[in-house]
Amino acid sequence: MTAPLRLSAGAIAAAVNGGETSAVAVMEETLARLAAYDAVQPQVWISRAAPENLLAQARAIDARVAAGEHLPLAGVPYAAKDNIDVAGFATTAACPAFAYQPGQSATVIARLEAAGAICVGKTNLDQFATGLVGTRSPHGAPRNASNLAYVSGGSSSGSAVAVAAGLVAFALGTDTAGSGRVPAAFNHLVGFKPTKGRWSTQGLVPACRSIDCITVFTDALADAQLVDSVVAGFDMADPFSRPLADMAITGKRIGVPRADQRVFFGDLQAEELYERALEVLGTQGELVEIDITPLLEAAQLLYGGPWVAERTAAVETLLRDNPDAIDPTVRSILEPGLAMSAVETWNGIYRLAALARHAEALWESVDALAFPTTGTTYRIAELAAAPVALNSNLGRYTNFVNLLDMAAVAVPAGARHNGTGFGITLIGPAHSDRALIAMAQDYLAAAQLPALPPLDTGDHMDTIKLAVVGAHLEGMPLHWQLTSRNAKFVGAFTTAPTYKLYAMAESVPPKPALVHSSDGGAAIALEVYELGLAEFGSFVAEVPPPLAIGTVTLADGTSVKGFVAEPRALDGAEDITHLGGWRAYIGGL
Amino acid sequence: MTAPLRLSAGAIAAAVNGGETSAVAVMEETLARLAAYDAVQPQVWISRAAPENLLAQARAIDARVAAGEHLPLAGVPYAAKDNIDVAGFATTAACPAFAYQPGQSATVIARLEAAGAICVGKTNLDQFATGLVGTRSPHGAPRNASNLAYVSGGSSSGSAVAVAAGLVAFALGTDTAGSGRVPAAFNHLVGFKPTKGRWSTQGLVPACRSIDCITVFTDALADAQLVDSVVAGFDMADPFSRPLADMAITGKRIGVPRADQRVFFGDLQAEELYERALEVLGTQGELVEIDITPLLEAAQLLYGGPWVAERTAAVETLLRDNPDAIDPTVRSILEPGLAMSAVETWNGIYRLAALARHAEALWESVDALAFPTTGTTYRIAELAAAPVALNSNLGRYTNFVNLLDMAAVAVPAGARHNGTGFGITLIGPAHSDRALIAMAQDYLAAAQLPALPPLDTGDHMDTIKLAVVGAHLEGMPLHWQLTSRNAKFVGAFTTAPTYKLYAMAESVPPKPALVHSSDGGAAIALEVYELGLAEFGSFVAEVPPPLAIGTVTLADGTSVKGFVAEPRALDGAEDITHLGGWRAYIGGL
Repeated sequence: MTAPLRLSAGAIAAAVNGGETSAVAVMEETLARLAAYDAVQPQVWISRAAPENLLAQARAIDARVAAGEHLPLAGVPYAAKDNIDVAGFATTAACPAFAYQPGQSATVIARLEAAGAICVGKTNLDQFATGLVGTRSPHGAPRNASNLAYVSGGSSSGSAVAVAAGLVAFALGTDTAGSGRVPAAFNHLVGFKPTKGRWSTQGLVPACRSIDCITVFTDALADAQLVDSVVAGFDMADPFSRPLADMAITGKRIGVPRADQRVFFGDLQAEELYERALEVLGTQGELVEIDITPLLEAAQLLYGGPWVAERTAAVETLLRDNPDAIDPTVRSILEPGLAMSAVETWNGIYRLAALARHAEALWESVDALAFPTTGTTYRIAELAAAPVALNSNLGRYTNFVNLLDMAAVAVPAGARHNGTGFGITLIGPAHSDRALIAMAQDYLAAAQLPALPPLDTGDHMDTIKLAVVGAHLEGMPLHWQLTSRNAKFVGAFTTAPTYKLYAMAESVPPKPALVHSSDGGAAIALEVYELGLAEFGSFVAEVPPPLAIGTVTLADGTSVKGFVAEPRALDGAEDITHLGGWRAYIGGL
Repeated sequence: MTAPLRLSAGAIAAAVNGGETSAVAVMEETLARLAAYDAVQPQVWISRAAPENLLAQARAIDARVAAGEHLPLAGVPYAAKDNIDVAGFATTAACPAFAYQPGQSATVIARLEAAGAICVGKTNLDQFATGLVGTRSPHGAPRNASNLAYVSGGSSSGSAVAVAAGLVAFALGTDTAGSGRVPAAFNHLVGFKPTKGRWSTQGLVPACRSIDCITVFTDALADAQLVDSVVAGFDMADPFSRPLADMAITGKRIGVPRADQRVFFGDLQAEELYERALEVLGTQGELVEIDITPLLEAAQLLYGGPWVAERTAAVETLLRDNPDAIDPTVRSILEPGLAMSAVETWNGIYRLAALARHAEALWESVDALAFPTTGTTYRIAELAAAPVALNSNLGRYTNFVNLLDMAAVAVPAGARHNGTGFGITLIGPAHSDRALIAMAQDYLAAAQLPALPPLDTGDHMDTIKLAVVGAHLEGMPLHWQLTSRNAKFVGAFTTAPTYKLYAMAESVPPKPALVHSSDGGAAIALEVYELGLAEFGSFVAEVPPPLAIGTVTLADGTSVKGFVAEPRALDGAEDITHLGGWRAYIGGL
């Protein structure tokens, strides 16, 4: 287990400009981090610059600073999703057959480099930015930085993980359906998706060209704002660029989905974390429940309507000439676009225009939206079985945003027990970017989120998580059996609401029995600890009958090892399920 | 010949509000005009309200005014193109199989009627507003109000003629490719095409729904502005509506096509009238020659690209189920849209976005454009031979405007010898509507255009036009042979530049011989007179040899009867072609 030591672009630039460190020193540290993490997830990257090249760039930055230049991103290492042109790197969009050597960098890259930032490499992605999962790449699936069993989110998978793992201070992603927000949520990051046209898309391999955005992942909002200040602004070379504008958000009415429209796909922890986020937001503004039906209908157009053909248009030649070069799942999404008609396309455009009217009207009753970034997350293994359907679930709260010309800032809102991040996204009308960042800052300041879960470096298979429900709880008589084994406290959670708790008869010290129930039950409070394998073994050896160590399902649907009981434990036992936990029972004795 | 006595919306409303006349009196006069013009061109209309219904509406207006209401369009009779819903009339779009009874009036109609205007009927159009000619209608082709041999222009054919003939004070048209401007030019009218979204298109049968505009034809700019003040403004029911905005035009740089890009399709009179208009504009601002290539390329997209499929989308069911119900020319335009793909559509949208960038950049070098509205006009008979190609010629200076989000005001700029109107269009960026109207007012004030040519009521077949080049010119010895026959002076023109002029030997009084030349020649000055048939016959009878009355081609390519000569006239004659006319020769004797 390694605590993530994330980088701050603002702090690095200030230190380099101020002479407290050098760009070379920053790059040497960066190279060490990159090398170390390559042992965990080499698939974060599609290509990387040679170390000597990066050090030479850093020396050049140091020389500019020494000559008196103030560079807003002096010596800041960053990464770019591999669908954005960076001179010196091939652009592949995660499709080797599509690869080309760009003649020049994308406009946003040129602006970053003029400001002193250094691109260490190009990151992995769902091929052609088509996906929200990160699994659709011939280079392998980047995994959630906090739990390698889970998807990183996509399509900007590598960019998110590179920032989450502290390899770079920021990374550019892109976002058409949520690709700059979903991986931010899963990896406890800020994901800033500017208003369409605020950041030039010149030099970007299109997904849906009319609504594509380049985005940034950072640890802190201040860094997203710093990058925005460097790259935002009109670009004559991008037909979809817009003049820079900043619109204030003056009111405090925060739109949230109507209660019956809050879908979490069974992810009770996500639901609880969202409720908690709304409690915080409720202290900062007025929560207004809205009907999100028009937003969901617009979202349907993205993969169920003619916008699919924008993706097809972007890769038409390859799709016709060499279809086998394309990821099968991606191809299954792109191919129907070949058969779509112009008439369907215009009818879709008209439908979207009507829905956009609804969305505009929304801004009369609310000043911003605060939605879950996603309703849930998935294991890599789960994705394989239903790669399109589960992917779609992840887009429920993101797909409509670009189509309806909105800006969005995804921010962390807590962790699931398994370490994966849950996030909320603040969404506002076009040009509300800076105002949304400020609103997100207020939220994070008030939310007091717990510390980041540790980075999952893949070596945790040597430990076991154990749920305790009775005499081993903190402050209880047998707790010393955990502390003496160097068990680490993971967190206080509850079971799935399908358990009953009994106070066993004649148990010394008093102990409960946790029993899975098929008729009724409740969420029972428990604590989860993590022990080394050997320590766990010796602990299990000491558990007396009728108790046993089995498997306990937590409220988020995941499972851990934990105390269960033989049937005989119930002989003469008292049902204390209604108390919700052992601590309440002991307190009442 | 009847001089057109056009109606003024502002004057009528002022008189009705002020009690100087009544809406009933205005309607009675209107009904008389309508009935009289029905004898000339009943095909202006697709449907008309019953007189008793109109008089009842007028009485209701009078009652409202008597009750103290001030109605900005009190009692003003108007017409609406039959692709705009008006409650009480079927909407047909000039396709009986498509007809339906609208449940309510279009938003703009509702606003007009709330302001006191009265709709007398629905006007003919190129079917589904697809055309710039007016000939594509099962109800017959409305004809140019000043010369029935010529097209009215379209697609808002009936609306333009109704205003030009003084039947209504204003008429609504629509404009996708130029349909609100081309018929204005041909009929000596103002044609105001607002910025896309300024006037609601709710209740309009779409042509290209994403760029359709409702427009107005008036005699005077003040009336266009009056109508705009009543109907402009946001409409929630129209997904393409935009918030009302008025942008000033501060500079005086007027963009005109580069000299080599001014195409008039051989119409020398139009070319000359445009030059004259530019002379006037040159006194009011700085003329800046621009390269119109990007504008022409955008225009190509309208009928050569996926925007065709917008038209197809609007009538897809009819086109598939009952194609024979559609005008053959219109169908030949709509059918290819069925085969166009979504990928083609998006690629077209991207191309337009790039061209729009060029157009936006244009506004950095010029403040408005002043283009010919059309390069030429055509006879109805000519259209039949090449209905699509000649129609396309008419759109050269209009097709790009809506695609590139510009506003336009078409104004008269003189008449051809045949009476048909030539016009220029002032074009500005989105929201420059009012500023363009003001600029057009300045132009018209300075242009001092000649009086309107007479209305062509079809009875001019009893007269003949005769070109004279020598002794019959005004002030010359034989001029009395015309005045004694009550000949009316039509105008001073020139021949096509393919004539030679000779001073005949031994002619008393001195007389010239006009000879068509196959190698070289010049434009020879002449005067055209109009005589009754009998008077013409007696005149011809008196022409002495070697002169004769034959056919002379004028500079605009049209022909009139006129003096020609037998070959023998050249015996010993002096070639005076270089002088350009007989008057110069006589003056030099």
